[in-house]
Amino acid sequence: MSVADLLNGMPFADHMGIEVVEAADGEAVVDLPLTEDLSSVPGRRIAHGGVTYALADAAAGAAVISLHHKPTPTVDMRIDYLAPATDDLRAEATVIRDGGSVATADVRIEDADGVHVADARGTFKTAGGDDDGGAWGVTPGDDSLAE
Amino acid sequence: MSVADLLNGMPFADHMGIEVVEAADGEAVVDLPLTEDLSSVPGRRIAHGGVTYALADAAAGAAVISLHHKPTPTVDMRIDYLAPATDDLRAEATVIRDGGSVATADVRIEDADGVHVADARGTFKTAGGDDDGGAWGVTPGDDSLAE
Amino acid sequence: MSVADLLNGMPFADHMGIEVVEAADGEAVVDLPLTEDLSSVPGRRIAHGGVTYALADAAAGAAVISLHHKPTPTVDMRIDYLAPATDDLRAEATVIRDGGSVATADVRIEDADGVHVADARGTFKTAGGDDDGGAWGVTPGDDSLAE
Amino acid sequence: MSVADLLNGMPFADHMGIEVVEAADGEAVVDLPLTEDLSSVPGRRIAHGGVTYALADAAAGAAVISLHHKPTPTVDMRIDYLAPATDDLRAEATVIRDGGSVATADVRIEDADGVHVADARGTFKTAGGDDDGGAWGVTPGDDSLAE
Repeated sequence: MSVADLLNGMPFADHMGIEVVEAADGEAVVDLPLTEDLSSVPGRRIAHGGVTYALADAAAGAAVISLHHKPTPTVDMRIDYLAPATDDLRAEATVIRDGGSVATADVRIEDADGVHVADARGTFKTAGGDDDGGAWGVTPGDDSLAE
Repeated sequence: MSVADLLNGMPFADHMGIEVVEAADGEAVVDLPLTEDLSSVPGRRIAHGGVTYALADAAAGAAVISLHHKPTPTVDMRIDYLAPATDDLRAEATVIRDGGSVATADVRIEDADGVHVADARGTFKTAGGDDDGGAWGVTPGDDSLAE
Repeated sequence: MSVADLLNGMPFADHMGIEVVEAADGEAVVDLPLTEDLSSVPGRRIAHGGVTYALADAAAGAAVISLHHKPTPTVDMRIDYLAPATDDLRAEATVIRDGGSVATADVRIEDADGVHVADARGTFKTAGGDDDGGAWGVTPGDDSLAE
Repeated sequence: MSVADLLNGMPFADHMGIEVVEAADGEAVVDLPLTEDLSSVPGRRIAHGGVTYALADAAAGAAVISLHHKPTPTVDMRIDYLAPATDDLRAEATVIRDGGSVATADVRIEDADGVHVADARGTFKTAGGDDDGGAWGVTPGDDSLAE
């Protein structure tokens, strides 16, 4: 099963319409069609900040997983909003530091017209998680993290 | 219309099940029942990182709006994941700095068992936005931000 | 050698006047007298943002090291400035999540009058670093981090 | 007086050895020779995290000020450490969003050998501050921020 198939099988990805286009060698491209369900304003399409973030987190996670082939929970992430997101979105993520315990990934999000709507950067846990029995399983003990 | 009514009318809040319980005087309490749709793992309830973030952003926004009574777009936000989120979630947000151009808000997220699952902190734009013709409208020009 | 002695022996701590008052059990208190050298404005004492951050990073690091007793490099940190820092500063740091690969610490900075001037939160690497031959040594290989 | 002259006149810049090489049109280049005073380890040159951050904050601030020609206090900043900083450092900053109340700037820090040691991103206040009587003065009232 490819990384993209794995990520596209997450219930929340389906709920949001997030689709991993590609994920390999520490890079990922992830799309999100902007439906009215995801809007902050009734009757208009203006992505809620949580929508843009969810796309960023998914893209960064896909980029890191493409190098580690196991769950790599998000430890922390920061997002900066640069322009209103009023059209379909695409996130491009790149791992800028990769190690045995943590990785760092950058994400750039543009809309279908090429407007740069947000940037994000996050830290991901790459240690542990091998033997936890689930694709997105949670490591038992005090070292677990949400994803 | 109360701040809570305004926020609860956002299509994305409805899509996620986010509910503003209260928002006044720079503080807000916001709930999110954790359904399987919001999970990272098929057949289990483990909140995707984007779910926890969406709740945090909504709570911080509600706290800031309760002081300004107009759109206060998120400029940036950081979230730190502290434990897996496997139950219904509640976010409590507090404005820790408020000014005429920006505000800063803190958010603490716990699950229904009182487990501390995440913290977040963000900067919100409090200037502008008065005359843009929409509850969550976007300020025209180069100073617009996504929310 | 205590954690405080170790940290107080860092050349940069001496250069800044940073002093670890206590560091134990995942908590730390660190002081910084605000001299004119550390100011952004000639002839006045207004701490440059880098001064407040250096204090925050030192305090968070001391709190994490007090649990791990080895180098725990900063992976990332965010600081939020809440008020001008015009007097001597004290940082109180607390580890809010501790694990075998990463830890998260919170820092609150106040001045001598009790004004809350900044908050910070960071992620620290707790894996590796045991056998690198130096108190603040750098782990060889691709997993090294600056501290 | 040029932006570079203004910034180079800050006592803390002198204390650290931070030098603004250029700052114009929303971009800045800032250098920091890595002396032993700035090290985390006695007898070696390994930049303390606070050193790299101070350089990043100075560079981002210079880039924003080059567009606004007045004090633009840092609201918040995140730094990600990517590799140990063991040589002289150079930061290149770019304003990626500029508006009437806030601006966002990106910073990339490399050492003299071209090693990418850190990235940072911050939000800066561009409103207010015109009439506060000092180059780096603090805006009176509840909207002041540390710089």
